[in-house]
Amino acid sequence: MSMKAPRGTVDILPQEAKKWQFVEDRLKDVCGRFHFDEIRTPLFEHTELFQRGVGDSTDIVQKEMYTFEDRGGRSLTLRPEGTASVARSFVENKMFGNPSQPVKLYYFAQMFRYERPQKGRMRQLNQFGVEVLGSADPAVDAEVIDLAMTCYQELGLTSLKLVINSLGDNESRTSHRQALVDHFSPHKDELCNDCQIRLDQNPLRILDCKVDRDHPAMQNAPSILDYLNEESRSYFDQVQNYLTRMGIEYEVDKNLVRGLDYYNHTAFEIMSEADGFGAIATLAGGGRYNGLIEELGGPSTPGIGFGMGMERLLMALDAESKEILIDDQLDCFVVAVGDEAEKEAVHLLHELRKDGIQADKDYQGRKMKAQFKAADRFKAKYVLILGEDEIQREIVNVKELETGEQLEVPLSQLVEKMHEMLLGGIENE
Amino acid sequence: MSMKAPRGTVDILPQEAKKWQFVEDRLKDVCGRFHFDEIRTPLFEHTELFQRGVGDSTDIVQKEMYTFEDRGGRSLTLRPEGTASVARSFVENKMFGNPSQPVKLYYFAQMFRYERPQKGRMRQLNQFGVEVLGSADPAVDAEVIDLAMTCYQELGLTSLKLVINSLGDNESRTSHRQALVDHFSPHKDELCNDCQIRLDQNPLRILDCKVDRDHPAMQNAPSILDYLNEESRSYFDQVQNYLTRMGIEYEVDKNLVRGLDYYNHTAFEIMSEADGFGAIATLAGGGRYNGLIEELGGPSTPGIGFGMGMERLLMALDAESKEILIDDQLDCFVVAVGDEAEKEAVHLLHELRKDGIQADKDYQGRKMKAQFKAADRFKAKYVLILGEDEIQREIVNVKELETGEQLEVPLSQLVEKMHEMLLGGIENE
Repeated sequence: MSMKAPRGTVDILPQEAKKWQFVEDRLKDVCGRFHFDEIRTPLFEHTELFQRGVGDSTDIVQKEMYTFEDRGGRSLTLRPEGTASVARSFVENKMFGNPSQPVKLYYFAQMFRYERPQKGRMRQLNQFGVEVLGSADPAVDAEVIDLAMTCYQELGLTSLKLVINSLGDNESRTSHRQALVDHFSPHKDELCNDCQIRLDQNPLRILDCKVDRDHPAMQNAPSILDYLNEESRSYFDQVQNYLTRMGIEYEVDKNLVRGLDYYNHTAFEIMSEADGFGAIATLAGGGRYNGLIEELGGPSTPGIGFGMGMERLLMALDAESKEILIDDQLDCFVVAVGDEAEKEAVHLLHELRKDGIQADKDYQGRKMKAQFKAADRFKAKYVLILGEDEIQREIVNVKELETGEQLEVPLSQLVEKMHEMLLGGIENE
Repeated sequence: MSMKAPRGTVDILPQEAKKWQFVEDRLKDVCGRFHFDEIRTPLFEHTELFQRGVGDSTDIVQKEMYTFEDRGGRSLTLRPEGTASVARSFVENKMFGNPSQPVKLYYFAQMFRYERPQKGRMRQLNQFGVEVLGSADPAVDAEVIDLAMTCYQELGLTSLKLVINSLGDNESRTSHRQALVDHFSPHKDELCNDCQIRLDQNPLRILDCKVDRDHPAMQNAPSILDYLNEESRSYFDQVQNYLTRMGIEYEVDKNLVRGLDYYNHTAFEIMSEADGFGAIATLAGGGRYNGLIEELGGPSTPGIGFGMGMERLLMALDAESKEILIDDQLDCFVVAVGDEAEKEAVHLLHELRKDGIQADKDYQGRKMKAQFKAADRFKAKYVLILGEDEIQREIVNVKELETGEQLEVPLSQLVEKMHEMLLGGIENE
């Protein structure tokens, strides 16, 4: 029998997991500075949440969801994105009633999309994201974009491109929608099947189509920016002014349309421009969704957020040759020879670890020389040698691997001495 | 429309999430000291993995799994426990070929079981667990138990009970199995339906039955400990000797039978004995599973591990009134009054955060007094006041909330001064 991880999923093995831990710790630290708190929502939700909260006409809901019935006959779906779940939690837990508004949240979460697996596109993917619920201040839009950019910059990425657009408010969107219908209707038969449906359901998303992107009608399609009413225009201007004041470079791309239905006003994407990063260069995407909370049964509440692919972030670090420094040294490795020494070694490990010292030993019945080899492989700072002689004299022979210095330490003082040696080396003893 | 999290699942909200972070960080630290590395496996696996790796006759596989077909017709299952996935990964990634043996892994993972939800028993639950693959040294059994106990003790738990048992090797199990069949067969009709099936499939699990536990035949049922062959007996003795040498108290419970099929030799559970903890007192359970890797298509490889419920760990901390100290202070809160000050405040936040300082401001257009109230609510250490006057003079008025001390700082020196004040307070400026 052969057992493999399901197609489109991977294991994150120890060496790789250390990188993930490092990156996650840095992102959490950035979130702390921006005064965002963590939220964790369940892996699956009622399917209806995503139909409502992501949008029935989106590719995600139509083609890519892992939907199943539980044993009680409820339709559940593994979350395909992060915003709907957080919005549901905001409503269910009545966070709109908190005295502290807006509510600023971040999450690390696995997402699930049934897509054709390829590099940078997995069926189980990991996202880091934030949501700010409860403020319609354009300064919040700038803060959220600043947070995303800070995350990347903290990790050393430099080849980044920030693209922003405004999708306007409802009034602006309605005028634009009509203009799109007028523009594309004469070409309806020339568009792909999906776009023919989009023309009725959500013509904005035609602009996002990968099949029709070279159709001549795309070139002079009406831009949302020409249909923004005064309020939407002013809002977008303010967001841009804040970004400029913070020294954050950006481009306006009037064709930037996010794949989810619930966006309005600010939309943004961050791309990697590193050489060899590949075709799928989008690292993060987000935007404002002022209608979503109401759609989910809550009071009218503005919101904005982004999602950032963790796998792509790690790919971008690779592409820019940013090494993640991992401390994979081991404080000490106990080399034990003989029955009594073996037993004492187990006790010694217990004492060392209880006192905060990293320690390991051999469990394969290896000879002394092979135990030393294991200590080397684990990059042990110190080897603690226990043989018959040491047991009899109630001492441990401590060897610092880097310097070769050696010292006899009474067994009863070992833990204390180890702390000192880990700070200052053997020489200073 | 009302949208709730699916039955048996909960959101972990910010205040609670801070506790989780604290606990997880401590557990990771313990794992580091014991020289265990993290592994992350996918949320779902091929259903067959759990049928093979947990056991077709177990309650988990028969009644509790979330199983569904993906759009390609494959049967997938959300993982109901952690060991099978890690074992699958060990085989698939050929970790048996690593020079460093045994392979010592830990994981934090959500698990999914379709059970009747009740306190301490959710449909989505969180587990921390470890697996050691590649060593049959009884010292490893002691190490794994030591790790679990250290985790609880690190967090301050004291009302703990460790129970161990041996399920023996294959030979011992076969003799015991026959003894059980002989013992229970005359009472077959009096046993519950499940146990009648267990009598054929896996009679050991009758001892674990909650329905039949008061049946008279349970009292004098043959104990595995009377059927251990010499090797199994010696193995169990050695594990106990190591535990004793480490000063770890334990009880031997001959009725301790773990619910999964693949265990042999050492089995253990850790219970909370805290008052008011409730009926479901098991905090962690684990044991040895020397046949599992081979069952999954790998080379014969011994293994041992445990799983620890995170929800129950947090319940135990509550039951023992162990408070988790959370740092929820904020370094500084910017109070801005007037248009120009608002704009400068956004820039100031950017500069502070970029330099590692935690900072926030109001985004609700609140008046000055309400902004100060928000600063209080966030437990801000410093309030940075920016009004028209400050803007004109290019300064910030810094107020330390605890002492009430106030200081004018030139805008251009603010970030630097904030670092100093956060270390030493305003008085020392």
